[in-house]
Amino acid sequence: MTREVSADGPSPYAGLAPLDEDELATLRAVGRHWQRAAGDPEQWRRALPVDLGRSRYPAEIEPRRLGRIVPVAAHNGQPANAAATPAPRRRGGGPPLRRLVLGAPLASTAIARERMRKLVALPVLSADVLSSVAYAPEAMLAVLVTAGAAGVRLSIAIAAGIAVLMLAVGLSYRQTIRAYPHGGGSYIVATDNLGRVPGLAAAAGLMTDYVLTVAVSIAAGVAAITSAIPALAPDTVPIGLGVIALLLAGNLRGVRQAGALFAVPTYAFLAMMAALVTVGLAHAAGRGFHAAPQPPLHATESLGVLLVLRAFASGATAMTGIEAISNAVPAFRPTAWRNARATLTWMLVLLIALFAGTVALIHVDGVRPAPDQTVLSELAHGAFGAGPLYVCMQAATAAVLLLAANTAFNDFPRLLFLMARDAYAPRVFLRLGDRLAFSNGIIALAAAAAAIFVAFAGRTGALIPLYAVGVFLAFTLSQTGMVLRWWRRREVGWRKSLAFNAAGGALSAIVLVMAAVTKFAAGAWVAVLVVALIMMLALRIRRHYDAVRAAIALRPVAAEVPWLAVGPPRPEPRRPADERDASAEGEESPDEVRHLTIVPIASLNLASVRALAYAASLRQPVLAVHISPAEDEAERFRGYWRAWGDHLPLEVIVSPYRAVVPPLVDHVGALHRQRPDITLTVVLPELVVKRRWHRALHNDVAARLARALKPLPKTVVTTVPFHLPS
Amino acid sequence: MTREVSADGPSPYAGLAPLDEDELATLRAVGRHWQRAAGDPEQWRRALPVDLGRSRYPAEIEPRRLGRIVPVAAHNGQPANAAATPAPRRRGGGPPLRRLVLGAPLASTAIARERMRKLVALPVLSADVLSSVAYAPEAMLAVLVTAGAAGVRLSIAIAAGIAVLMLAVGLSYRQTIRAYPHGGGSYIVATDNLGRVPGLAAAAGLMTDYVLTVAVSIAAGVAAITSAIPALAPDTVPIGLGVIALLLAGNLRGVRQAGALFAVPTYAFLAMMAALVTVGLAHAAGRGFHAAPQPPLHATESLGVLLVLRAFASGATAMTGIEAISNAVPAFRPTAWRNARATLTWMLVLLIALFAGTVALIHVDGVRPAPDQTVLSELAHGAFGAGPLYVCMQAATAAVLLLAANTAFNDFPRLLFLMARDAYAPRVFLRLGDRLAFSNGIIALAAAAAAIFVAFAGRTGALIPLYAVGVFLAFTLSQTGMVLRWWRRREVGWRKSLAFNAAGGALSAIVLVMAAVTKFAAGAWVAVLVVALIMMLALRIRRHYDAVRAAIALRPVAAEVPWLAVGPPRPEPRRPADERDASAEGEESPDEVRHLTIVPIASLNLASVRALAYAASLRQPVLAVHISPAEDEAERFRGYWRAWGDHLPLEVIVSPYRAVVPPLVDHVGALHRQRPDITLTVVLPELVVKRRWHRALHNDVAARLARALKPLPKTVVTTVPFHLPS
Repeated sequence: MTREVSADGPSPYAGLAPLDEDELATLRAVGRHWQRAAGDPEQWRRALPVDLGRSRYPAEIEPRRLGRIVPVAAHNGQPANAAATPAPRRRGGGPPLRRLVLGAPLASTAIARERMRKLVALPVLSADVLSSVAYAPEAMLAVLVTAGAAGVRLSIAIAAGIAVLMLAVGLSYRQTIRAYPHGGGSYIVATDNLGRVPGLAAAAGLMTDYVLTVAVSIAAGVAAITSAIPALAPDTVPIGLGVIALLLAGNLRGVRQAGALFAVPTYAFLAMMAALVTVGLAHAAGRGFHAAPQPPLHATESLGVLLVLRAFASGATAMTGIEAISNAVPAFRPTAWRNARATLTWMLVLLIALFAGTVALIHVDGVRPAPDQTVLSELAHGAFGAGPLYVCMQAATAAVLLLAANTAFNDFPRLLFLMARDAYAPRVFLRLGDRLAFSNGIIALAAAAAAIFVAFAGRTGALIPLYAVGVFLAFTLSQTGMVLRWWRRREVGWRKSLAFNAAGGALSAIVLVMAAVTKFAAGAWVAVLVVALIMMLALRIRRHYDAVRAAIALRPVAAEVPWLAVGPPRPEPRRPADERDASAEGEESPDEVRHLTIVPIASLNLASVRALAYAASLRQPVLAVHISPAEDEAERFRGYWRAWGDHLPLEVIVSPYRAVVPPLVDHVGALHRQRPDITLTVVLPELVVKRRWHRALHNDVAARLARALKPLPKTVVTTVPFHLPS
Repeated sequence: MTREVSADGPSPYAGLAPLDEDELATLRAVGRHWQRAAGDPEQWRRALPVDLGRSRYPAEIEPRRLGRIVPVAAHNGQPANAAATPAPRRRGGGPPLRRLVLGAPLASTAIARERMRKLVALPVLSADVLSSVAYAPEAMLAVLVTAGAAGVRLSIAIAAGIAVLMLAVGLSYRQTIRAYPHGGGSYIVATDNLGRVPGLAAAAGLMTDYVLTVAVSIAAGVAAITSAIPALAPDTVPIGLGVIALLLAGNLRGVRQAGALFAVPTYAFLAMMAALVTVGLAHAAGRGFHAAPQPPLHATESLGVLLVLRAFASGATAMTGIEAISNAVPAFRPTAWRNARATLTWMLVLLIALFAGTVALIHVDGVRPAPDQTVLSELAHGAFGAGPLYVCMQAATAAVLLLAANTAFNDFPRLLFLMARDAYAPRVFLRLGDRLAFSNGIIALAAAAAAIFVAFAGRTGALIPLYAVGVFLAFTLSQTGMVLRWWRRREVGWRKSLAFNAAGGALSAIVLVMAAVTKFAAGAWVAVLVVALIMMLALRIRRHYDAVRAAIALRPVAAEVPWLAVGPPRPEPRRPADERDASAEGEESPDEVRHLTIVPIASLNLASVRALAYAASLRQPVLAVHISPAEDEAERFRGYWRAWGDHLPLEVIVSPYRAVVPPLVDHVGALHRQRPDITLTVVLPELVVKRRWHRALHNDVAARLARALKPLPKTVVTTVPFHLPS
């Protein structure tokens, strides 16, 4: 069975890095060293008191009981559903509910890749960018009205500028598709061509972008609903949180980019927008393109360059998601890059048409942003009245915005996966959940988006200033990376491609600076700060993982020490301190481990005697330790110990301040300092209760001691449980 | 050195029960059994690779740096302060602050008992009961005014009834002092003479009483302050919580019932009250005992029997704390019981005089409860005007109420200690903190009192209905116990004592029923419910501890099995399942322990190879287990294992749903079912990070696995730490 593992596809193997030749050689050297210490492997095999042979968990695959909402496409001809089995039984409560909400687990072999036709790919990949015409023109207008009628008149010109920008960036991404047929997200392109830090900057920009996509799309979607049903307006925040919870559950369940699910609302939205623009312009033509009378505007700001730039940056949020197709090239049918390019062209045409049409309609209708309904809703009212067509328009808008939010739920966890694979994000984001979804990334996105949504009370307008920085940072770095790539490689046609990317990159850079500067006080500073923090955190995470990797790497054995048999306890030759191996932890083969087992004993009962028996059965030197609050109690305990037979060495420590854990930790530390070459095993008897509330009735000395011993060098903690009957 | 351990004094030894003869015999039998298995003790002693000899923690006693606020009385002639040393160093943050607030730890030998003179004992032990004249007459009046002027006129009669009750209960407690010279708290007396359940009822009643004493005293104390400074009234709750925090810190520090600290405010309060009554009555005499004109009262309730009884029950809260002297007989100088009796008599005289005087003064002044100041404050204004005498009055009242609350901080943890010693309360309440205070009980009381105080917003009047039930339940059970005691023992003078106790018990019982019935809806139901819950909980705790005691008791060895040497690994003779020892856990000597060590390995790195080396060095059979998400990854891992040398048996489990912990737990369980006689030791390599936030960067598989393995029978968990450099 061969698996198709793409460069950046999700994989359950990502946490298990294959070894290179050097590492293999080291492994063999370590093994040879071990051989001398541990003796014949066959002897170890014969000593095994159990039969082996279990090799799969869960052992049997039973027919599934709960189906899935969205079928996963076939893999190797088999329907993927065959790999969905009932839940393996887990400990603890909840699984039945969990299964009901999330469905049965999916086997790793069920990873499948949908190969999309262009007509399916278009709605799937462009829901995000096309839906942004539902809020971007309004965001632009909201800036312009502050400068009064003169400002509003500029909207056509600014929209034209944005259309040029869209074209430039779109053409630029056509080059990326060609160059990265396995998917060229900004993180990959920037890392690949510009290096670590620019790659991280692009990733951080994208991460903020995805979080804001969810928040803004849901805010705009809820606004589309409350425009139609104003009574729902006070419940904006709960509705939005409900939608986020729905997306969370759906994505944890593993709802893939299922074609039909996306095609219907996106095409419906396109159709309704087309109808809106057509009908609206026809009306306007009917009245000779004279705007409906509007109350005069009071300019609160002067119409300066800064205001125009701010309007431009706000309107440019319509471009968020334009990079989606270049990320998803492998999802197209062959020849993938060709189909992807064609789809991108179509998307660009539709985007520019919708954006321009909307702005034009706003202009001729003279519509202004209102507090209680969206501009799109006002336009729809103007064109369709309040009838069923208006309801369809609002429903299609809300649906396509919901899908746009869902896109982020696909992309954000995937980005975190890529970062985690490169050790820039915690390893938990590598984990494929039992539904083959990156559950941790999905949860992280939902949590971040919900926090942002609540913090901004679900107001689209307040979120827009944060939005542009991340997006255009990613665009800029990605396009700059492409420019460098063309320059370095000089493949056929590189000049043209370089020119396109340079244009796209330059324009993106300008918009980035524009957005960061003009909206800094309005909220862009948050985005800048977050991007910087994410980058810093990612670098620190990487540094930690690098240190761990170096620390746990197998090392070639320097000096091969003569073999020492480890048998039943016998007097250990006392070596002076300077002869001893001073390295704190160095035992990589059994003969290098010398033992002393320490058993803390509070009183002589069945649990502690079993711990003593366990310790003694290891046939290594044993030392029992008793902590006593006073000298006379200590004497009494020694008496009991003698009554028992004084079978093992006992040390009694008087702790007049009645502390138990600190003297034991101190004592273990002292023993380590006395013989740093010895591994100390602390055997702790631990009472295990059946019911949770019973825990409060027992001192958790064993757990506290285990925690306190953890930082001590060469100290192993062994917990011998004693199960209480009730 | 001999220690004076009283029957119910606090002791650091309470958790360490001495063994009786049967237990000692069992211990010897268990030891003989061990002897055959483990061989010569001298061999074990010689095998020990370290020197012993540490016997004290902390090792040196350095001169103290932080003194204590209140000196502890001398023990065996030495000043107790000599036993206060600087804090032993503990792991983790906080100790310096902790030491600053709580002081250096005190050695167990510093437990000392103050022997009080009568003149000191009187203020120490009567602050609680005497201070209640600050709120009890007002509580009574608050009920009576609802029946209008006719109701108020009854106050003298009801007060006379309460005085009779005080006398009866006080005389009754004189008998208890005689009979229980080591201290006869209600819990002890009721348990001793009536049995477990009545004893627990008395304890539960006292516990609610102590919590309410704190809440009510502080509420009344804050009311005394806000009466004088009305601007502070809105801050009642924060002020009260601050006072509780102060009492908490002081008591954790171990402020004992230090004579002078208590004597000054209590005597000051007595003096001020005497002055108040004298001056007030003199004024009244001057105007011919005609009450000052008051606005007419509107009766909102009819003057029925129920209302009178309710007023009586409210006024009777003046008696809370009357039992304090009988609890504390050993604290008196010899002959203790004689001095205690004399002090009780004095206390009774003062209590009745103050209570009667206050009620009389209220009557002649015609004072009514007001929302913004206490009745006592009104009386003081009437007698002293607004000058310095008034301020002194209010300050003395607040101070004595604070001391009354402090009394509960001495008694509640002591009661919990007694209950824990009898296994009716969690063992944590046995623990003497390093300042020789029952820290856990003190914290529990502060938390409960703070919760009640906040819930009732610090309003004294609202708390009163809850108060009487617990107190009079304890009184009734204690006196009934005494009656039974006299009847059974028939010592000299038993008839008279029985008569006094019977009278006190009967009257208490009547008041108990009265309080529970008439104030049931007003809040007494809470007290009744809490008492019932505490009793139920105590019985369930006892049942659990009894089960634990039985489970961990050493058992005489039934059949002495022939000795089996446990050496280096060798093939284990396979016995059929029915021959094996079916008992889940039974190994009480080393030869009965058969081992299989299981090492879960995620990848071959330094940490896991060290865990393997540790496991192999124990020279018991070892099985390495690898969990793989897919068959081909499993094959790759087997390849690495062979490259290493295939030194140890390896089992690879394919877990296609990518779960790690469940398949391991399942596998360990399966191995146990295959050979239930074998002890399975799971050796877990665990990465230990230096910084807390780094924990988020590592899967906590080791910790999760350890938790999941805990319920499995005969499964020992060994954690081999690997310390990361940064």
